[in-house]
Amino acid sequence: MADSFSADEKYELMTRNLQEVLGGDKIKAILAKGETVKCYWGTAPTGRPHIGYFVPLTKIADFLQAGVNVKVLLADIHAFLDSQKAPLALVGHRVSYYRHLLLAVFKSMGVPTDKLEFVVGSDYQLKADYTMDVYRLSSIATDHDAKRAGAEVVKQSATAPLSSLLYPGLQALDEQYLDVDFQFGGVDQRKIFIYAEEFLPKLGYTKRAHFMNPIVPGLVKGGKMSSSDPKSKLDFLDSPADVKKKIKDAFCEEGNVEENGVLSFFKAVVVPIAELRLRLGAESLFVREGAPEGTVVSFERPEKFGGDLHFKTYEEIEKSFAERDLHPGDLKKGMVEHVNTLLAPIREAFESSAEFRKAEADAYPVPPPPEKKGKPVKSKGTKPPPPPAAAAAAPETVADSTASITAQTEALAVSDNVKEL
Amino acid sequence: MADSFSADEKYELMTRNLQEVLGGDKIKAILAKGETVKCYWGTAPTGRPHIGYFVPLTKIADFLQAGVNVKVLLADIHAFLDSQKAPLALVGHRVSYYRHLLLAVFKSMGVPTDKLEFVVGSDYQLKADYTMDVYRLSSIATDHDAKRAGAEVVKQSATAPLSSLLYPGLQALDEQYLDVDFQFGGVDQRKIFIYAEEFLPKLGYTKRAHFMNPIVPGLVKGGKMSSSDPKSKLDFLDSPADVKKKIKDAFCEEGNVEENGVLSFFKAVVVPIAELRLRLGAESLFVREGAPEGTVVSFERPEKFGGDLHFKTYEEIEKSFAERDLHPGDLKKGMVEHVNTLLAPIREAFESSAEFRKAEADAYPVPPPPEKKGKPVKSKGTKPPPPPAAAAAAPETVADSTASITAQTEALAVSDNVKEL
Repeated sequence: MADSFSADEKYELMTRNLQEVLGGDKIKAILAKGETVKCYWGTAPTGRPHIGYFVPLTKIADFLQAGVNVKVLLADIHAFLDSQKAPLALVGHRVSYYRHLLLAVFKSMGVPTDKLEFVVGSDYQLKADYTMDVYRLSSIATDHDAKRAGAEVVKQSATAPLSSLLYPGLQALDEQYLDVDFQFGGVDQRKIFIYAEEFLPKLGYTKRAHFMNPIVPGLVKGGKMSSSDPKSKLDFLDSPADVKKKIKDAFCEEGNVEENGVLSFFKAVVVPIAELRLRLGAESLFVREGAPEGTVVSFERPEKFGGDLHFKTYEEIEKSFAERDLHPGDLKKGMVEHVNTLLAPIREAFESSAEFRKAEADAYPVPPPPEKKGKPVKSKGTKPPPPPAAAAAAPETVADSTASITAQTEALAVSDNVKEL
Repeated sequence: MADSFSADEKYELMTRNLQEVLGGDKIKAILAKGETVKCYWGTAPTGRPHIGYFVPLTKIADFLQAGVNVKVLLADIHAFLDSQKAPLALVGHRVSYYRHLLLAVFKSMGVPTDKLEFVVGSDYQLKADYTMDVYRLSSIATDHDAKRAGAEVVKQSATAPLSSLLYPGLQALDEQYLDVDFQFGGVDQRKIFIYAEEFLPKLGYTKRAHFMNPIVPGLVKGGKMSSSDPKSKLDFLDSPADVKKKIKDAFCEEGNVEENGVLSFFKAVVVPIAELRLRLGAESLFVREGAPEGTVVSFERPEKFGGDLHFKTYEEIEKSFAERDLHPGDLKKGMVEHVNTLLAPIREAFESSAEFRKAEADAYPVPPPPEKKGKPVKSKGTKPPPPPAAAAAAPETVADSTASITAQTEALAVSDNVKEL
């Protein structure tokens, strides 16, 4: 499929909707030679991925469609380094859950995954040559360099652990060890990417290109729901009824196209997927009966208000909404329908795979019911902390396990903005 | 030999002349059970070891004599982490040189070395479980913790590399991975030892004991010789004539026992070695003919000034010097004689081993002759730094290779004070 594109068309597909590209000429040169471009996108398996992950995955679908070899790094060591967002005892299970889930998501989008490879960080990041490179890099970068690099991604505070300073270095070295031509992430990764561009050549390695997605505004902007409330985010495994309920609660003001997470989802996910499927000649997912040719998305609308709406581009949708032709109620209804279309095969993959279900159960164990708030137990002096093994094995609270969606790339950015959904 | 000592006698021998012991009760308990105590002392193979290294090695001789299993860690990774004091291309050769040299020094002191083991850091510090523990430790310690720990040992500045923050953590983990009961070092290591005592238990490991040597004042205190001047330090391989010349130049004021590096060398090295040999029933090394029984050190003195002096303890030597009975000239002459006695078998080991000689030549390659200071070459804009491989392979300047005697333990402290010799 990719071979039917010219080098220019591939580059255009790879870079569409990106906010920034660094080192694009190198990628063009590889394409011009007819060679395969290789990239990686990393995600730290911490909290449960929510549907904000559709955003980077939709972009990755473009890469796959353009014939790029894509490595998805399940960055388990990073999950741990970033303020221990994933306890060691759970991180292995989360790797497994993320792998099952992301693969199911790619399948639900209908993109070919033969050029997609999952790599687990600890499979190579603990090897001697890699570790020596961590030390080599640490011997030429200062803690100030590392702090600046991680400023927008890694949790930072006066009491931030030393490991947060190592995080950007590992992310840079991954470009070398995963043998890629570019790394993909959200623009929030920019400082880490610059760090990689600065230090890899100092270690004798090639400077890589960097492709950056824009930050997608939150889907329920304006909402005040706590990010620790599991009801406030749309999980990939939510039931159709949950999807309906959560989208119904989303902030989506008539005519307001600036602060509109629902519209953003159409821009970053639904329309690009529809366009990809159109190119692939695959069945339309978001189009209603009677739509004219070239339609990417339809919205159901009662006959008395003018009947169904059909759009060929995202811009048409946005224009229609701005002109108050497409009403918030219809937009939301459309989103419910289309999200459920995307989630159905994911739910099905989950239900039909005992391994997938077990991975989920192990990765996010149900916490014990909270203790009743009665009389506080009297403290008998200072109590030593629990031994690390026990601490690591203790299930996270609901708050932790749902709030700490973090990844080393766009997923974090998305989570920062999408977590209310 | 050790078995002829009681547990109390062993502990007394192990701790004599130490400035501080933390966790001594644990060591006593092991001895009381009749079990073998295990310890480690680490040294980072950076610059050429000078005779200040006799100080920790003399203390280690006590441990060996008391039946302790001693691991000498040749901390090559540390040498690199501490501001790249040893270039990667040379550090392997320096490990080899240190190993040859330290073994020769132990032999020259006449202590049994069957319970002495050399371990090279990179042989285990790059393994996956160790690295994961570096990350685990980094995830619970802050950069502030690490900076404080390394304050007296690791080079620190606003531009200090990130690796200097990792250094104390590795030193702590070495206690676990070398499976020892205590770590030995100079009191300058105290903050790193405290760091180890704090964090190992948090990782689920046992808190180790720590034995600390006092800091020995410089042998040429008051001297103004540059530490980058190779003539200013006494190398283990210096010729008898060099030894004589350098000690002759040492600061040693009549009656002044406070600032007197020559006296300190007797206190920390000559007398303890003499006492050890006395216990071992070995030939006296520092005693002249006609000395009364129990003499540990003699000084030649012309008959007209009262003839030879003989001492049974260090305190007697100090008292005699304070009372201006033992004259600086005679003290220095004695030091020349005794140092040459200690160095002779080391020189011999060097001369008779092609491997030892090759290790030395590879570890400290002779730098190319300095360029003549003529007209400065005009700069043609900014010049890129040399590629790292070339930079690493370039031999250090004389200044670097002689000034940067550093070790992760007492050796550093010694070097800070002894480097003028």
